[in-house]
Amino acid sequence: MDRERINKQFKFALEIDKEKMIGRQTYLSDGIRLENDAEHAWHLAMMTILLSEYANEEIDVLKTVTMVLLHDIVEIDAGDTFAYDEEAKKTQRERELKAADRLFHLLPEDQEKIFRGLWDEFEAGESPEARFAHTMDNIQPAMLNAATEGKAWIEKGTRLPQVLERNESTPKGSKILWDYSYNNFILPNVEKGKLKK
Amino acid sequence: MDRERINKQFKFALEIDKEKMIGRQTYLSDGIRLENDAEHAWHLAMMTILLSEYANEEIDVLKTVTMVLLHDIVEIDAGDTFAYDEEAKKTQRERELKAADRLFHLLPEDQEKIFRGLWDEFEAGESPEARFAHTMDNIQPAMLNAATEGKAWIEKGTRLPQVLERNESTPKGSKILWDYSYNNFILPNVEKGKLKK
Repeated sequence: MDRERINKQFKFALEIDKEKMIGRQTYLSDGIRLENDAEHAWHLAMMTILLSEYANEEIDVLKTVTMVLLHDIVEIDAGDTFAYDEEAKKTQRERELKAADRLFHLLPEDQEKIFRGLWDEFEAGESPEARFAHTMDNIQPAMLNAATEGKAWIEKGTRLPQVLERNESTPKGSKILWDYSYNNFILPNVEKGKLKK
Repeated sequence: MDRERINKQFKFALEIDKEKMIGRQTYLSDGIRLENDAEHAWHLAMMTILLSEYANEEIDVLKTVTMVLLHDIVEIDAGDTFAYDEEAKKTQRERELKAADRLFHLLPEDQEKIFRGLWDEFEAGESPEARFAHTMDNIQPAMLNAATEGKAWIEKGTRLPQVLERNESTPKGSKILWDYSYNNFILPNVEKGKLKK
């Protein structure tokens, strides 16, 4: 056993515990408290396994699951950037790249390459797995927002064009899941006035 | 597209959101609040991907990851049973079986079979994947307890023989990881008096 290697791996395993402390802007389905990044990543991983049959292109499920599990790790340093905060989004990329450098560098070199590679691939959004991961990342909060009668949308005064812009990438991973999300989570809340036109 | 099928899948996807509301008895690494089941499952999945090289036998990583992601879902109905609560442990199996029947039955039949099969396999603990999943399930709280200077152990008055009994299955999945956990997380806290002999 390589002691330096295993020590690095456990240093990383402990460091990522901090992802549980990073809050998001989506309420849990009971509408009582906001979700955090680790819970969100767990939910995406479960949904990836559950819904992979709807991917537009064939995907490697383990690769996609790994991608969604680690996609928000950079927020440990960079914080959660709210999808509709235009000011924060200007510096988001730079903050997250710096975080990726620090966090993945805790790992042994071979695993740093793999994990960092998956994060870069997710960010680029150009492989079948990255496209499906983004579909998950977009439909899960829509599902929760619908379950809370649009609570987060109402509080933030979110408008339909913002939601549609955010979801530009959603059909690229799965047309079927985008249609489902639009018809079951988004449109009914526009009709009920929870999401402004 | 089979509308009944996709509706069932989303019903399940929304129902499992409740796992985020099930508290555990382990503190996060900052020692401020207790962990919940969804965060715990996310951490186990990341650690499975990170540490699979140390499994005693070769494991199917996606299968193991799926197993750890869903292993605590039954606690949505059955609640978290503290590892050292002997009274609650008497009814645990019955409560969890009932929960498994209800929850996995929300799924389309083929997926019910797969998910329920993985949960049963985890419970039985007799395949290489189930053994490694239990190793993860045991070393993750030990890592967090050590990170908080044994906070949960002190509060509960936990004794070393209890920890060793709980960890009886840990070396079956990975001798290397059990040795690491024992020498780095458990033993130092016995020496410091955080964990009673």
